[in-house]
Amino acid sequence: MRTVEWTEAGLDVVDQTALPQVTRVTLATVDDVVDAIERLVVRGAPLLGVVGALGVALAARRSAHSEDGYRPDLVHAAAERIASARPTAKNLRWAVTEVLPGIADGHQTVLLRALTLLREDVEACRAIAQRGADLITELCGAGRPLTLHTHCNAGALACVEWGTALGVVRALHERGAVHLVVVDETRPLLQGARITTVELAALGIDHRVVVDGAGPSIIARGLVDAVLVGADRITANGDVVNKIGTYPLALAAARAGIPFVVAAPESTVDAATPDGASVPVEQRAADEVLTVGGTRMTPPGSDAWNPAFDVTPADLVTAIVTESRVLRTS
Amino acid sequence: MRTVEWTEAGLDVVDQTALPQVTRVTLATVDDVVDAIERLVVRGAPLLGVVGALGVALAARRSAHSEDGYRPDLVHAAAERIASARPTAKNLRWAVTEVLPGIADGHQTVLLRALTLLREDVEACRAIAQRGADLITELCGAGRPLTLHTHCNAGALACVEWGTALGVVRALHERGAVHLVVVDETRPLLQGARITTVELAALGIDHRVVVDGAGPSIIARGLVDAVLVGADRITANGDVVNKIGTYPLALAAARAGIPFVVAAPESTVDAATPDGASVPVEQRAADEVLTVGGTRMTPPGSDAWNPAFDVTPADLVTAIVTESRVLRTS
Repeated sequence: MRTVEWTEAGLDVVDQTALPQVTRVTLATVDDVVDAIERLVVRGAPLLGVVGALGVALAARRSAHSEDGYRPDLVHAAAERIASARPTAKNLRWAVTEVLPGIADGHQTVLLRALTLLREDVEACRAIAQRGADLITELCGAGRPLTLHTHCNAGALACVEWGTALGVVRALHERGAVHLVVVDETRPLLQGARITTVELAALGIDHRVVVDGAGPSIIARGLVDAVLVGADRITANGDVVNKIGTYPLALAAARAGIPFVVAAPESTVDAATPDGASVPVEQRAADEVLTVGGTRMTPPGSDAWNPAFDVTPADLVTAIVTESRVLRTS
Repeated sequence: MRTVEWTEAGLDVVDQTALPQVTRVTLATVDDVVDAIERLVVRGAPLLGVVGALGVALAARRSAHSEDGYRPDLVHAAAERIASARPTAKNLRWAVTEVLPGIADGHQTVLLRALTLLREDVEACRAIAQRGADLITELCGAGRPLTLHTHCNAGALACVEWGTALGVVRALHERGAVHLVVVDETRPLLQGARITTVELAALGIDHRVVVDGAGPSIIARGLVDAVLVGADRITANGDVVNKIGTYPLALAAARAGIPFVVAAPESTVDAATPDGASVPVEQRAADEVLTVGGTRMTPPGSDAWNPAFDVTPADLVTAIVTESRVLRTS
């Protein structure tokens, strides 16, 4: 199953807000694409990139088929709207930028470029998975099946058809090297509880969901062999920007002396940004925190802070695995 | 408002599962008391102690008024049931044990001892609040109002009428020294979002709720001056057992170089237990994690771990404030 398909009607995507129920929706317009990105109907840094690029292709096709004829300037404007829909993830703007030069050559060139990115995502994730599995085996030893800890969802549903961090778990599972996966539920939107569990269940990998506050002490009690997460942006100095709640796992892993490994495609690496402190962190609506399951949990006067990401400093990261290399910055 | 009152009908308590709606329920029997403790209708280490002691008084009164006449052996059996209802909090068994010698002297002696504990809780919390406020001012400086970070609820609703950690916040607020309080929502049961917010709103203290995964990075970004939490048990070496999710804040505070202060009555100190690793950590039902607002979030095959507490090692604790002293173990 692919998370996104290009069809005559538009982009056919898995609606990730409805998981664990698997339903697909069609994004027929640029408005649909921007709304889907903002509402996390599509999410996951690699998938955001592919959907962003295909969104530009969609804009180009609609322009080519419009009464006024093909208007490259309008396609460029649509591309900028899509690239700006979420500010933190590196891959979204990167992928949109990759297809921009095709706009002058017409809608079919844009599509060709976007579909190339889609194919490259699949290949990159497979390469990350194998290299990451080798690295984890090297770091933890090959003597016994491992307990791995992950946060949010860096799986197939965050990519096209094979995950980053969860791709590594899958590759290790295929080698018989996984005992159990500890999954942070990942408030406020529960991508761990709703999405990562679906993937692990489908792969037949035993897992336990924990509240986000429990992860660090489970690591401290010696129950975890390694932490494996994805990334939304990796800055020049090796700082890792990822879903809120990643940093506490890195603190706990460092104190416990276990590996903290980040798995992400090269397109996540942002050499132009010096460090994590320089990255704009998306602040999402307070209601995501104040309401749970549609019910407001707090009295009327209470407000919330809802940063979507945190920064794990490079010195807490054991290694970063991409499709082409292993980076060790600490 | 007191969280518990002794009445003719039994123990009149605030139902903390219904917060932020304030409703009171009557615990008329020992079964009611045990059920209320297990379901967290009453919660918070100091309050658990007082309710446990009053529960024994309830058992004694019912026995004295029964057809068979007063039976100290049955009251002792009831006391053991109450003391065992939750295994981790030190105060519950401590308070029940405090009233046991009165059983031989009849139900009114038991009640007198229990009401003494209730009065002492109020006095202890007030003393903790003032000493803690002095300590925080000493550690953070008195130049500007402070941003304080707390977890779960160690407030009036965890005690009889004045809190421990939140009592310190209240004392600082009365001195004009509080700018803002950051409140972890505290999954799975959301005591931060549902209970601490109610107290802060009633006191007119500005606050922001955050998901538990966000706390450590908010500290890392320099937005917090000090972390203030309660405790369920403090072991001989100074390890602090508290609500799950406390440990990550301590890790983050240590790295950021800000104070991590624990406020708790002396009855929380367990000199007979050498360290946190020796404390039995209550495992609660998986459904508290797997369901959110009554809806199951995970696919059918997924399971959860649900430890109710974590251990913060003594070296991460700046100071422990009780009603009679400031302990510095690190």
